[in-house]
Amino acid sequence: MSDIAKNIAAKLIQRPSVTPDDGGCQNYIASLLAPLGFVRTQVDAGDVINSIYTRQGELGGTLAFAGHTDVVPTGPVEQWPYPPFSATIVDDILHGRGAQDMKGAIACWIAAVADLCSSYTPMPTIQLLITSDEEGESVDGTIRMVEYLQAHNKLPDAVIIGEPSCSEKVGDTIRRGRRGVVQIKAVFHGKQGHSAYPQDADNAIHRATPALSRIAAIDWGVPATGFPATSCQITNLNGGTGASNVIPGHCNAFIDIRYNPGNRFEEIKAAIESACADCDVTLSFDHVATAFSTADGPFLDQICTSIQRIAGIETLRDTGGGTSDGRFLAAAGIPVAELGTTNSTIHQVGEQVALHELTTLTAIYTDIIKHFEVQP
Amino acid sequence: MSDIAKNIAAKLIQRPSVTPDDGGCQNYIASLLAPLGFVRTQVDAGDVINSIYTRQGELGGTLAFAGHTDVVPTGPVEQWPYPPFSATIVDDILHGRGAQDMKGAIACWIAAVADLCSSYTPMPTIQLLITSDEEGESVDGTIRMVEYLQAHNKLPDAVIIGEPSCSEKVGDTIRRGRRGVVQIKAVFHGKQGHSAYPQDADNAIHRATPALSRIAAIDWGVPATGFPATSCQITNLNGGTGASNVIPGHCNAFIDIRYNPGNRFEEIKAAIESACADCDVTLSFDHVATAFSTADGPFLDQICTSIQRIAGIETLRDTGGGTSDGRFLAAAGIPVAELGTTNSTIHQVGEQVALHELTTLTAIYTDIIKHFEVQP
Ligand SMILES: [Zn+2]
Ligand SMILES: [Zn+2]
Repeated sequence: MSDIAKNIAAKLIQRPSVTPDDGGCQNYIASLLAPLGFVRTQVDAGDVINSIYTRQGELGGTLAFAGHTDVVPTGPVEQWPYPPFSATIVDDILHGRGAQDMKGAIACWIAAVADLCSSYTPMPTIQLLITSDEEGESVDGTIRMVEYLQAHNKLPDAVIIGEPSCSEKVGDTIRRGRRGVVQIKAVFHGKQGHSAYPQDADNAIHRATPALSRIAAIDWGVPATGFPATSCQITNLNGGTGASNVIPGHCNAFIDIRYNPGNRFEEIKAAIESACADCDVTLSFDHVATAFSTADGPFLDQICTSIQRIAGIETLRDTGGGTSDGRFLAAAGIPVAELGTTNSTIHQVGEQVALHELTTLTAIYTDIIKHFEVQP
Repeated sequence: MSDIAKNIAAKLIQRPSVTPDDGGCQNYIASLLAPLGFVRTQVDAGDVINSIYTRQGELGGTLAFAGHTDVVPTGPVEQWPYPPFSATIVDDILHGRGAQDMKGAIACWIAAVADLCSSYTPMPTIQLLITSDEEGESVDGTIRMVEYLQAHNKLPDAVIIGEPSCSEKVGDTIRRGRRGVVQIKAVFHGKQGHSAYPQDADNAIHRATPALSRIAAIDWGVPATGFPATSCQITNLNGGTGASNVIPGHCNAFIDIRYNPGNRFEEIKAAIESACADCDVTLSFDHVATAFSTADGPFLDQICTSIQRIAGIETLRDTGGGTSDGRFLAAAGIPVAELGTTNSTIHQVGEQVALHELTTLTAIYTDIIKHFEVQP
C-alpha cells in the first residue's frame, strides 16, 4: 500500500505544475482512476483545469476528496538538495515541490481508493475534486466545480481536503474551519494647504487618525467556539507629500481583518463605516474569503476515531492558518475537514515528505472511507 | 530719487546671486556707500558673505537696515518674459530675480541714505546688515552679524528689514513679528508580525493613531495679541511594509508646528511628550525658528506715521508668513519691523517690481530715517 502512494506521489511531482499549470497531472490521475470505475468530468475555466472524478458506490451517500495539482514556484533551484521535480527518494524521504502541498495527499487518497475498490463493499460514492488553481488566484478552481455540482444536484455529503494540516505527526491536527478575510482601502479626504495657513486647509491625517483609532478599538464580540478572535489590523498608512510644511489633502490606510464565523461581512462593513462616519472617506471593501466552520458532530468525530484507530493519537480540531478552498465547499453547506501530511516544508526550498507519513495517511483515508456514514 | 533706486536695483539684479552666492553685490554696495562715509566690516562664515556697513551719525542712536543679496533659483529660464538677470525695464516695470525679494528694497534704502547724507542733519548712526544666506540655510548669515555686534557692543536700537511685506500697495503692511517653528519626527515602535497572528505582534500604527489624535487636538491656549493661533499639523505619516498582511513594527510621523509667542518651545515639547506618554516612541525635536514679536510702541508708531505722511494709507501690523531673519535680531532684544515692496511675484518665474513702488519706498525710508528717535 505504501509503495502505491509513494509511486503515485513521485509521478505527480515529476510533472511540473507551477500554478495555474496542471502539468498533465489530472490526465495521469484519470489514467489511474478509470480502471477503478471512475468517470471524469472536466470543468475547465480560463487557464485552469478542474476535474471531477466520480465512482458510484453501493452506499447511499457521497464522500468527496478535494485537492490541487498546482504548486508554488520552486525558488532558487540551485539551493534545492535535489532537483525540485526529480522526486528523488533518499532513505525515508521523498524530495520535491508538492511533496507535502499536496501531491502526497492526492497519492494517498488514490492509493486508498485503489485498495478499497478491489476488496471492499459496500462503498460510498467517491468524488475527487481536483483543481490546478489553489496556489494562485483561486477564482477559477474549486468554486467552479462547486457551481457545477450544485447545478447538477451532485454535491457530496462531506469533503476531506488534502491540505497539509498536521504539525508533528500525521493525524495530530485537522482543520475544521478558517477565519474569513476582509481587506479595506480607506482614502481620507481633506484639503491640501500650507502648514503656516491651516485655516485654508483641512488636514486629512488629522481626520484619519481618530477614525483609525476607533477602528483599531472596535469590540468584535465573543469569538465563535474554537476560533481565534476577530483581528482587525491597520497594516499600511500613508499621508503627506514628503514636504515638511504641506498639509496633506489625502491619507490612505489599508486594513486587514481576519474574522471568525461569529462575525459576518455585513456587520464588519457597518462597523468600519460607523467608525468613519464623521470623515469624508472613500472605503473599498474586498471580501477576500468567507469564514467557515464545520460544527462538531458525526463527520469530525468519525475522522478523529479513524485517526485514533490507525495512528493511536488524539486530534486537534484546529481553525488557524490563512485561507483555503474549504470556504467554497462550506459555503455550499457541506461539512469540511482538512487532513493531510505535516506542513514543515510547504512552500519552501527543499520541500519533502516522509514516506512513513504517506503510509499512515493512506491507512487513515482507507479507514475513513470504510466507516463513512451519511447523516440523516 | 527714483532713478537712483531704479539704477541700483538693476545693477544688483544684474549680479546673479543664487543663494548662498553674493555675486559681487556686497562689493558693489560698498562702492556706493564708501563715498558717503560708511565703513564696511565683513563677518563672513563658510560660503556666506556678510557685510556690516556703518556710518556714524550726529544723533545718539543707531537705526539698522537688514537685508539679503541672495536670491532663490530662477526656475525654467525659458518661461521668463525677459532673462532673469537682465533687469529689463519695460514701462513702469523692472523685471528680474530679486526685484521684490529684496534687491529693490536694498536699492531704496541706499538711495534714501545717499540723499540724506548729502542734505540732512542730524542723522542717526546708520547700519546696513547684509547677508548672502537668507534664502538658504540661514545658519551663517544674519545670526553671525548679530553675534559680532553683541560681542563688540554695537547692536542697533531698532531694525528695519527690507523683506517684501506689502500686499497691494507699498506701506499697506509691515510685519512686526513671526510665529516660531518647531518640527518633530516621531517614530512609534511596535513589533512586526503577521496579521493572522496579532497576539505575536504589536501594531505600531495602532499605537500611533491615538497619540497623533491627541497631538492634533492639543489646546494651545489663547494666542498672543495680534498673532494667529499656534498651529500644529501632522504633515507626513507612514507605516507599513506595503504588504497587506504584515503588522507594521514602526510608524513614522512628521509634525510641523507654527507657534505664536504666547507659547514657548519647552511648553510645546512637554505637550507633545505628554500626548505620547503611553507609547514606545522616539521623538526628535527641531526648534527651527524662535517666535518673535515687537510690541506696539514708538518705533512701530513712527514707521506707520511716516507711511501715512508719504503714501497716505493705513498700515496693517501683521505677523503672518513663514520665518524671517528678524528672529535673530529680535532675540537680541532689538525692535524689528519688516517693510519692503509688495510680494506678488516673489520666488516665482517672472519676478518683477513696479518702479513707482521703489519711488514710494525710498521716500518712506527717507522719512523714517529723518524722524528716527531713540527711546530711553
Ligand atoms: Zn495546498
Ligand atoms: Zn527675502
